[in-house]
Amino acid sequence: MLTTTHYQILRHINAGGPTTRAELGAHVGSSKAAMSGFTRELLEKGLLRETSTVQKQGRPSALLDLKPEGAYFAGVSIMSDPALVALVDLKGKIVARIDVPRDTDPDVFADHVANAVPQLLETGKVPGKSLMGMGVALSGLVDQEQANCIKSTILGWQDVPLARLIGQRTGLPTFVENDAKSLALREKLFGEARDIGSFTLIWLGKGIGAAHFVHDRLYRGAHGGAGEIAHCTVDVNGLPCRCGKIGCLDTVASMIAILETARTQGIGAESLNDIETAAARGSSAAIRLLHRAGSALGLAIAQIIQINDPQMVLVTHQEQAFNGLFAAVMQQTIEANVLPRLSGDTPLRIRGVDNDAWALGAASVATHSFLNGSI
Amino acid sequence: MLTTTHYQILRHINAGGPTTRAELGAHVGSSKAAMSGFTRELLEKGLLRETSTVQKQGRPSALLDLKPEGAYFAGVSIMSDPALVALVDLKGKIVARIDVPRDTDPDVFADHVANAVPQLLETGKVPGKSLMGMGVALSGLVDQEQANCIKSTILGWQDVPLARLIGQRTGLPTFVENDAKSLALREKLFGEARDIGSFTLIWLGKGIGAAHFVHDRLYRGAHGGAGEIAHCTVDVNGLPCRCGKIGCLDTVASMIAILETARTQGIGAESLNDIETAAARGSSAAIRLLHRAGSALGLAIAQIIQINDPQMVLVTHQEQAFNGLFAAVMQQTIEANVLPRLSGDTPLRIRGVDNDAWALGAASVATHSFLNGSI
Repeated sequence: MLTTTHYQILRHINAGGPTTRAELGAHVGSSKAAMSGFTRELLEKGLLRETSTVQKQGRPSALLDLKPEGAYFAGVSIMSDPALVALVDLKGKIVARIDVPRDTDPDVFADHVANAVPQLLETGKVPGKSLMGMGVALSGLVDQEQANCIKSTILGWQDVPLARLIGQRTGLPTFVENDAKSLALREKLFGEARDIGSFTLIWLGKGIGAAHFVHDRLYRGAHGGAGEIAHCTVDVNGLPCRCGKIGCLDTVASMIAILETARTQGIGAESLNDIETAAARGSSAAIRLLHRAGSALGLAIAQIIQINDPQMVLVTHQEQAFNGLFAAVMQQTIEANVLPRLSGDTPLRIRGVDNDAWALGAASVATHSFLNGSI
Repeated sequence: MLTTTHYQILRHINAGGPTTRAELGAHVGSSKAAMSGFTRELLEKGLLRETSTVQKQGRPSALLDLKPEGAYFAGVSIMSDPALVALVDLKGKIVARIDVPRDTDPDVFADHVANAVPQLLETGKVPGKSLMGMGVALSGLVDQEQANCIKSTILGWQDVPLARLIGQRTGLPTFVENDAKSLALREKLFGEARDIGSFTLIWLGKGIGAAHFVHDRLYRGAHGGAGEIAHCTVDVNGLPCRCGKIGCLDTVASMIAILETARTQGIGAESLNDIETAAARGSSAAIRLLHRAGSALGLAIAQIIQINDPQMVLVTHQEQAFNGLFAAVMQQTIEANVLPRLSGDTPLRIRGVDNDAWALGAASVATHSFLNGSI
């Protein structure tokens, strides 16, 4: 049985990289002798390894790191069709992957996922007992317990107990999370936000989502609705939204809205890339469209900065073109709508997301539960 | 010396009220014997007292509560002129208060505060050693360390090391905090938010501020700027703001802006009350003004709900009239701009703030530090 101190050690190394027993003792607030005991137990369980030694005050100290093969997690991304199931080690490396049909019948889909597990373990040469849990990433609203999909328009699901359906078939602790929150967990565990306590991740896909880390923890909100920025009002005189409101961010800056507007404006475009190309060639409709969408997203991000003052904003997207007019207008709007004294003080980073990133994000949901002692 | 477990016990009782050793043991995760030790130490130090007994499974159990006179904190409110210094017990009751001149020379002001302390102790019949710390509440930006006033327009201060100036004179651990965050601490420790982990408090005064509690902790943001909603853009085509931006919430919904607009519109008004009266009598200018201000504040609150999904929003104000058109428009705008599925799910509470509340808020900054082991 691992104690809270064991998990604290694992999280600290995950966030800060290899370190010494002395530094761990100082962080956890335990004596040298006690820390020797904790780390010995983690070494015996195969969750830690000694990597190298450093000279401290003349004496060599061993550096302790997470042992990649100490624990594995499966990640199921339902963000693409087919869905992707991946096997990920404790340090976030994908060691095996399998595509499975994205069947919208939840029972059939759970069958596909469960059937993929033995093959994943075989491909990755991983013993079954090392697989500690499974995470699932999807577009939609997920409940507070990370167990049920409350609603997913894309999948046509409502109140689907997905964690139970999959868990019953695999015997694995299973956790469900939405797209933006899964990506935020990936960034916190394995990415750019490892050592950042409070940040916001924006996900621009067919829809728009966001996720907040606050005080080193994913903040899900009172109803799991934290980060539902797609339905922030960005224009009180704006377009009617499918949610019932007027002027939601979703109506102008989601990829569904952008491509629909391109279609109605006669801009021949099947991607943001195409619209950027049209704008670069001088199409006033394309320029107007990109200005409108980029400024709406920028305004929403500015609101987040004014309201929450995060240490970093990370904009993630699935588009190839994200270095053109859209991104420029977005950045300019952020700067223009943040208190001048603080403007530019919030680092903004932009990065694309591929299928592997989604699968790793999904696995991160389970890894995060493991590192917090919930598995 | 108190340990983290002692403080955890004090915080748990503060949040949930009197409880038994068994319940405390379950909360803290310690054995019955260990919990007996911890509570005995807290009883000996005079921080806890036994209040009554309850029957549990036939056996009587003592209920433990905070002992009001176990520790005292001073609160300095610079929100009014004169400023108010109050002495507050561990359960948040004000036992003595003194007005001091709100001198804008920080050294002179620190002198006034220091001189007030002996008299406060005498009036309250409190021994000096029971006074554990001091908190100061002001309008302005305060640094991450709750030590320095970075900027206060109202006081004309810039980079004033107020905690040091006062602490040097009194020998007390001293903490500075801004208006909204002080009020939020008061609500968390002694008010409506005791058992609420994540909530947002809005402060409508001359300016507008907000403060967030997340995961049971005050969230100050990367630059102490969390909650600076006065400079959220609410109208991209709006009025120029004194911050340099356009269309800030501050330009339409702060009391300064509301009264300035009333003046330019020829509405004879010196308070929100007067404008509400004019509106009730049919003044179209007054009705328009209240609609504009109420909807701007409502829109900003709706953004907070969409972005953060807090468990509660508490709107605090200094006005006598807050049950009229302004509040009605504010509430209607919130409802209209929150995702319909979640609309109405976030409790909204409204309450007035008087001088005592500010002094208690100021003291709460120190009480909070004490309960978290930082004093």
